[in-house]
Amino acid sequence: MRVPLTRCLLGSLRGQPGQARALFTLQDHSKKPSSVPLTKESFKQLRRGDFAEATPDDLSKLKELVKGRIETDKDDLLKHNCDWMRTLRGSSPCVVFPKTTEEVSAVLKYCSSRRLAVVPQGANTSLVGGSVPVFDEVIISTKELDDIIDIDADGGTLSCEAGCSLKTLEKKARKKHLFFPVDLYIREAQIGGVVAADMAGPRTARYGNLHGNVLGLEVVLPDGTVLNSMSNMRKDNTGFDLKQMFVGSEGSLGIITKVSMACPPRPKFINVAMVYTESFDHVLEIMRLAKEQLGEIMSACEFMDNDAVMSVKQKHLTMWGVPSKPYYVLIETAGHCDMHDEEKLKFLFNLLKDKDLIMDGQIGPLNYDDPTFVERLWNINGRILTALSSTGNVYHYDVSMPHSMQYPLVQKLRQEAGSDITKVASFGHLLDGNLHIALQSESFSADTLDRLDQLITENVTAAGGAVSAELGCGFKSRNLGAHCKDPVEMKLMRDVKKMLDPQGIMNPYKVFPDSQ
Amino acid sequence: MRVPLTRCLLGSLRGQPGQARALFTLQDHSKKPSSVPLTKESFKQLRRGDFAEATPDDLSKLKELVKGRIETDKDDLLKHNCDWMRTLRGSSPCVVFPKTTEEVSAVLKYCSSRRLAVVPQGANTSLVGGSVPVFDEVIISTKELDDIIDIDADGGTLSCEAGCSLKTLEKKARKKHLFFPVDLYIREAQIGGVVAADMAGPRTARYGNLHGNVLGLEVVLPDGTVLNSMSNMRKDNTGFDLKQMFVGSEGSLGIITKVSMACPPRPKFINVAMVYTESFDHVLEIMRLAKEQLGEIMSACEFMDNDAVMSVKQKHLTMWGVPSKPYYVLIETAGHCDMHDEEKLKFLFNLLKDKDLIMDGQIGPLNYDDPTFVERLWNINGRILTALSSTGNVYHYDVSMPHSMQYPLVQKLRQEAGSDITKVASFGHLLDGNLHIALQSESFSADTLDRLDQLITENVTAAGGAVSAELGCGFKSRNLGAHCKDPVEMKLMRDVKKMLDPQGIMNPYKVFPDSQ
Repeated sequence: MRVPLTRCLLGSLRGQPGQARALFTLQDHSKKPSSVPLTKESFKQLRRGDFAEATPDDLSKLKELVKGRIETDKDDLLKHNCDWMRTLRGSSPCVVFPKTTEEVSAVLKYCSSRRLAVVPQGANTSLVGGSVPVFDEVIISTKELDDIIDIDADGGTLSCEAGCSLKTLEKKARKKHLFFPVDLYIREAQIGGVVAADMAGPRTARYGNLHGNVLGLEVVLPDGTVLNSMSNMRKDNTGFDLKQMFVGSEGSLGIITKVSMACPPRPKFINVAMVYTESFDHVLEIMRLAKEQLGEIMSACEFMDNDAVMSVKQKHLTMWGVPSKPYYVLIETAGHCDMHDEEKLKFLFNLLKDKDLIMDGQIGPLNYDDPTFVERLWNINGRILTALSSTGNVYHYDVSMPHSMQYPLVQKLRQEAGSDITKVASFGHLLDGNLHIALQSESFSADTLDRLDQLITENVTAAGGAVSAELGCGFKSRNLGAHCKDPVEMKLMRDVKKMLDPQGIMNPYKVFPDSQ
Repeated sequence: MRVPLTRCLLGSLRGQPGQARALFTLQDHSKKPSSVPLTKESFKQLRRGDFAEATPDDLSKLKELVKGRIETDKDDLLKHNCDWMRTLRGSSPCVVFPKTTEEVSAVLKYCSSRRLAVVPQGANTSLVGGSVPVFDEVIISTKELDDIIDIDADGGTLSCEAGCSLKTLEKKARKKHLFFPVDLYIREAQIGGVVAADMAGPRTARYGNLHGNVLGLEVVLPDGTVLNSMSNMRKDNTGFDLKQMFVGSEGSLGIITKVSMACPPRPKFINVAMVYTESFDHVLEIMRLAKEQLGEIMSACEFMDNDAVMSVKQKHLTMWGVPSKPYYVLIETAGHCDMHDEEKLKFLFNLLKDKDLIMDGQIGPLNYDDPTFVERLWNINGRILTALSSTGNVYHYDVSMPHSMQYPLVQKLRQEAGSDITKVASFGHLLDGNLHIALQSESFSADTLDRLDQLITENVTAAGGAVSAELGCGFKSRNLGAHCKDPVEMKLMRDVKKMLDPQGIMNPYKVFPDSQ
């Protein structure tokens, strides 16, 4: 169903906060974990670290430490050994489910004493293989650490255990009129893993990143020592801010067991609209005018190209009549007064029309009572990767670059990516300068991956960008991140790792490049 | 001049952004640096560290390394040896003024090789004595590192050298319609020092803290190694976020030479208003309703008590007719549409009146063309400490605490602070949970200071608060911060210090408590 732009402008685009998040998952559930090749076989050049192998005696001891909460059945272990994207599979002999910080501490103390490698695991939603074992690491799940500790409505803070899901936290915060400022597509993600991966999502420019919003952490260090850096204070300037070391450490320095977070007042109204335009230059001009006109109420500004949106349309026929256009821009506002927000959006649209920057606009079925309206527009954006994955192999890159260099890179890739690449689709979080590029081929090839890695790395680093913007390095991008780092930074990273994890048992084969 | 509330509500309260910052300084310039006792004599129990003393040969060598930019004249050194508050005085034999990162590196390499202790100094505006020598440390000034490197209007980022002042950065950002998100009273403060001290100011809840907003840093480590963690990307997830270690390290881990910062779109209109109320419970209820009604446009919400405001009135007779009331709340909005912002503020006022929460409101002379209007209201807030200092000795505490416990602490202090305390004034940044308490006495007493330190520390830590909210520990609060830290944190702080500064030459006698 196509709605003329004027209609959009006059009609109410109101949604309810909390519905702005797409409820789909990126995971292709049709693929069985058992069909995924073992990582150690796919990556034959990888060498297992000098760690002990867990013996039956170790498993008994671990079982005792977590009061029986251990999984050792091979079939039941599959979902813990296999990653969210169903591309990697480890061979861990067990998952333990500690229920308290003390149990996490006891498990790590034991593993450390035995030199057993471990991998922390939340909801196992890492898109870069950060939360699965590569060889036979012991999996320590944070699933049972799921208590809310405190919500201070006046202070705008929420503290909880690491295993709480974003879905739960959003719900709990909402009851106190607060907004939980981490807003990912995968809402079952657990906050401990999210903080460890430093995932912030498409609304980071509005609500801030995790380094800003995390107020306190409790972390169990590799030797079992508990580091209590919890605080519910928005300002605490009493010495070094040590917790920051663990935000983005991807489980390689310790296991986060508790988190305290700053939460802003919850916006009362969400408006979303989609406009179509002819060129990427126009996309950027739309972004500029949207910033200028919407200011503080803008919560997201997403761009998608034709290949991206048409891939979703191909897969989901009922995609609410979105036409084929060169570029799409999804604009979201989140504010406290629906009339004011709508007026600002109206004014912006008229301005974009007057300046001939947009071809048309579409907002899906204008059913004012339809609570899923906002979701639907977001779903187009969020389904791009799954749609492409369902019809071929996808090489996915998540990069940061200055805006003006973003689409030229996409176009360059269309020229230079090689004949086996059949489609180059792109979309991005414009307010964060974060571009996603998905290159589709019929099947996976290690040679192609190497070539693309090189092409992307060269171009992104030359532009002063980052080869991992929001997903982290994990296992999949462990060899890419170092290209963005100064040698002094890499040395300091290794010094920090050595200081906190001298045996290297915490989440090995991740973050650091193989050669280091 | 008193303006009835209805007039305020109907009148335009518009200000211009950038004028919301008070232009006064906290410094009591009437006090000569030469009259300040030497710190090493005031604090006789302090022992000088095991560092070399700079010889004439060292000074010649240093002079050469910075191409003659060195100050060794005793009188000219005074302002560098003496702190902003004129309470501490070091005995450094020289200040060097490197102009490039390479020069900073050469100076540190030399000092490190000679085991000479150093203190980095920006505009020397630390309120806790963080930027002055305690004994004879070599002062390394960042004053000459004052280039703007890049401003990316689309990306909303600004990168510059460490010696740029907040005033300059605000001006440069403004030209690109960006808002520089650090907003302190002392606008000559330099960004390198501000980041090192992790000072964020009264608008942190709206614009985010420095851990969130700093995108990149270049730091010269104590041995002269240059750590390049610069990035203009809002999202960079390629490995550990090492730059975070230096945000809030107070110059004790290295010298920040370059900074990259995320800047939001610049709000177009600032509105400010002041309301009076009868109790601190009402203050909190006003804050709650302001958050609910103003939402994303609220940029500050400040409370002041009668003792605080009347002290300013006593000192500045022309204080625009502010009456004596129990409590004052200053509310600031910063938005993109003056009509909308004013409407929201109007609605809030009517609500506060309807609920009998406010006694009256006052906004100073309603001269619509007066560009300094917004400044004036802020000046009441910002002049409290200087006003109190001008009529006696002030013990000043900057703490974070849950809101409901804040004023009970102030009242407790009025009971228990001792007979030499003649006045206890308080004011705070409500949105950040940050309370300032100023205790006035006729003269300074070390015993009283000890007693107050203990009283504050006990009460604040028992409430889960922080004894330094925004000013850092520096020299003055070096023994207080540790009370908020877990022993494991203190050990890790020392490990980090040892890793980066094994000789301990960087800004000694700061941050860490004496006994450590």
